[in-house]
Amino acid sequence: MASVKLFGAPTSTEVARVLACLFEKEIDFQLIRIDTFKGIQRQPDFLKLQPTGQALTFEHGDKTLVDSREIIRYVAKKFPNKKNLAGRGMLEMASIEQWLQTDERSFDPPSSFLVFHLAFAPALGLMPAEEKEISKKEEDLKRVLDIYEQQLRETDYLAGDEFSLADLSHLPNAHYLMGTRCASLFNSRKKVKKWWDKISGRDAWKKVLAMQQDPSTAANLPPAAATAAGGD
Amino acid sequence: MASVKLFGAPTSTEVARVLACLFEKEIDFQLIRIDTFKGIQRQPDFLKLQPTGQALTFEHGDKTLVDSREIIRYVAKKFPNKKNLAGRGMLEMASIEQWLQTDERSFDPPSSFLVFHLAFAPALGLMPAEEKEISKKEEDLKRVLDIYEQQLRETDYLAGDEFSLADLSHLPNAHYLMGTRCASLFNSRKKVKKWWDKISGRDAWKKVLAMQQDPSTAANLPPAAATAAGGD
Repeated sequence: MASVKLFGAPTSTEVARVLACLFEKEIDFQLIRIDTFKGIQRQPDFLKLQPTGQALTFEHGDKTLVDSREIIRYVAKKFPNKKNLAGRGMLEMASIEQWLQTDERSFDPPSSFLVFHLAFAPALGLMPAEEKEISKKEEDLKRVLDIYEQQLRETDYLAGDEFSLADLSHLPNAHYLMGTRCASLFNSRKKVKKWWDKISGRDAWKKVLAMQQDPSTAANLPPAAATAAGGD
Repeated sequence: MASVKLFGAPTSTEVARVLACLFEKEIDFQLIRIDTFKGIQRQPDFLKLQPTGQALTFEHGDKTLVDSREIIRYVAKKFPNKKNLAGRGMLEMASIEQWLQTDERSFDPPSSFLVFHLAFAPALGLMPAEEKEISKKEEDLKRVLDIYEQQLRETDYLAGDEFSLADLSHLPNAHYLMGTRCASLFNSRKKVKKWWDKISGRDAWKKVLAMQQDPSTAANLPPAAATAAGGD
């Protein structure tokens, strides 16, 4: 079996999404981290991202991928003998894919923006966006969470009664959001809160958090947040 | 200026020695870490060491070095404009070199052995060496510390009244020893204790400790200790 290599910083939401998947599936891999120290200051991760846009690289044999959701789909398909995260029948697989796309298109854009402006901009002494703009993104997020609340009245997880890639994919952004005033948007929705408690308490995700909490990287920004800020 | 690259795990005493030197001199560098995860277990650092013996690699332009003391000598010489750690006149330089060699030949061998058998073997469920053998190494260490105590009555640091490479080189092993019963060997020697408090309280060293305390690497062995165990 060709070896799996992951290049990137665990504080990045993109990298964290892939790490959560690799830990869930108990796949052997190597994590290669490059930290740049300028004088005695560590350079924040988001600065690394800007020159090349390559915060994340995944290699498996001669396959190279750089998009986190593409990587987790690939991992789920290539390692079918490990814990199933991508569904069994056609219908289940289609449902997981649909919720993965909901994350990417509807949950991720307001989330990444809010993580950057509410959590990281103040910590870095950067000017956050105007309150009006922040509120607008919160409204976007509320609309998505209302849809989730409705779905989670029917099923334990987004795409059915089993944890899947669809749930996993939300972990990195939701985790950072829970450290901001947006936590109330999750906590005030009963089923969403229950779902969050369940998915964030998984062993694989706790391993990712331990890696993010390395005190030497604690001051780093998640690159995804910087992308969101730059792209908006 | 060619860039400085360091490959290795901060929990390694060899890597920690070089990190302390780079932070003291406030040199720009990149740290490249490779962590191997087997299933969901991280592979202890000492296992990585065994296949190749290459726990540490230092690159500066086309210069490549793998011995930690050779690297810190090189860094001190190549970056003379930054904080001086290698002495000014011939006499001072010779004295620093002498104490660096005392570390390497007399302090390091019993220290590495004791770190492995008192700190890491029990934590890993490995059989430590017999008490007789441990006591013998403690006697070796006491003899060195008696010489240090005598020297430190004359000067604030080993090679004079300024902190130098000679002091810095002791940090990684002494730090792990302070977590074992050998702490008393330091604490019972008044000048050695004062010296240890001073050198271990330096900002550069605190940065190294923060990197070692990454919770995801906390279970790892320092590779130097494994070398000591294997070589004895």
